[in-house]
Amino acid sequence: MSDIFATIVRAQSAYIRCLDTDRLEEWPGFFGDPCLYKITTAANEREGLDGAIIFANSPGMLHDRVSALREANIYERQSYRHILGQPMILDDRGGTYRCETPFIVARILLDGVTDLFATGIYRDQYVVDGSEAKLRERIVVCDSSRIDTLLAIPL
Amino acid sequence: MSDIFATIVRAQSAYIRCLDTDRLEEWPGFFGDPCLYKITTAANEREGLDGAIIFANSPGMLHDRVSALREANIYERQSYRHILGQPMILDDRGGTYRCETPFIVARILLDGVTDLFATGIYRDQYVVDGSEAKLRERIVVCDSSRIDTLLAIPL
Amino acid sequence: MSDIFATIVRAQSAYIRCLDTDRLEEWPGFFGDPCLYKITTAANEREGLDGAIIFANSPGMLHDRVSALREANIYERQSYRHILGQPMILDDRGGTYRCETPFIVARILLDGVTDLFATGIYRDQYVVDGSEAKLRERIVVCDSSRIDTLLAIPL
Repeated sequence: MSDIFATIVRAQSAYIRCLDTDRLEEWPGFFGDPCLYKITTAANEREGLDGAIIFANSPGMLHDRVSALREANIYERQSYRHILGQPMILDDRGGTYRCETPFIVARILLDGVTDLFATGIYRDQYVVDGSEAKLRERIVVCDSSRIDTLLAIPL
Repeated sequence: MSDIFATIVRAQSAYIRCLDTDRLEEWPGFFGDPCLYKITTAANEREGLDGAIIFANSPGMLHDRVSALREANIYERQSYRHILGQPMILDDRGGTYRCETPFIVARILLDGVTDLFATGIYRDQYVVDGSEAKLRERIVVCDSSRIDTLLAIPL
Repeated sequence: MSDIFATIVRAQSAYIRCLDTDRLEEWPGFFGDPCLYKITTAANEREGLDGAIIFANSPGMLHDRVSALREANIYERQSYRHILGQPMILDDRGGTYRCETPFIVARILLDGVTDLFATGIYRDQYVVDGSEAKLRERIVVCDSSRIDTLLAIPL
């Protein structure tokens, strides 16, 4: 298995660990500058719609998102558990790797009720420099279109 | 991690990506010739029953299955999301690798409702030639016996 | 990808395969001596509580647990399906590796009903000797606090 694959796996593990342990302030650090982060749905993509549930195209916008969540206190009422499949590296454009990774996210409410919150794929562009991989772009494509009203914290 | 492991991981990622993006026509291409594809249940296996929910022992039968699904249009009403665990390679018989891989499949209905559709293991035989791995055999063993009436598209 | 990572992945695959095929008698063999096995919840950890749902600190206690389950016959009414994410190796203390691995477990009742039973992380210490990895310690941290009344077989 290539070093690139291992580096991307490790970066993805650290990313979901950050979200699932509610260390949101560290989340922007997984992205480079410039960057793009977007949550959309498979239906939106099929119909060629641009609409995004969450959109950020700079580290500053990612930080703003975290601040807004902390003020709203929404995150305190639930936690997430991400399980990722294996990343599939699609191509290498001079150190920038496009890859797709399927995910499933369970949501655990404060009273203990656990449900299947979201499924989909990460469509990523990773810039790999030595043993470090930063997200140039992460498009989160959710399979269900029901996601928008429930969405609070990043995927 | 061995090259064989990486090659099998990559073949499995491509397989589920094919199904989850509804490119069923490419699905038979993941199998060699001859081949065996079968969906059964853990209860059937425990009781030594031969009954299969889906059975195909040639590439032609796999293609027929896809044609039937396309005519029935069942696939348009739902999509799948497969998440695989790590494959466990059991043995190597001269280029043919037996391995087992646990899976979980979520089903997303057109109205956005998402449920846990199936769990189980792939019991595979992969023929590996260089960087290419083809399925000589895939036995899909579903944990639940309730699967049959719901099953539309391949697992 | 390092040999250590591959060795731990393989040990974890074998561990869940043992549980999911109801070969509980082999389960203590995944631990070294001395060992620690504990199931707790994220809420317990946050509040610094010591309480554990299951606790064993010797191979003998693990064997006792299996005997108790076999006598109670609880295991016959359900099966589990574990799906693990990628292990994240945190550090290496002279052959002992601390790592964290997210999990999701589906439970399949005898009548076929499948639900999302548990999510959380394994917080492990693996002692690696050549191609063999044994658990020095496995703390199973469940995300939900509802787990205790339902818990029958090990995670």
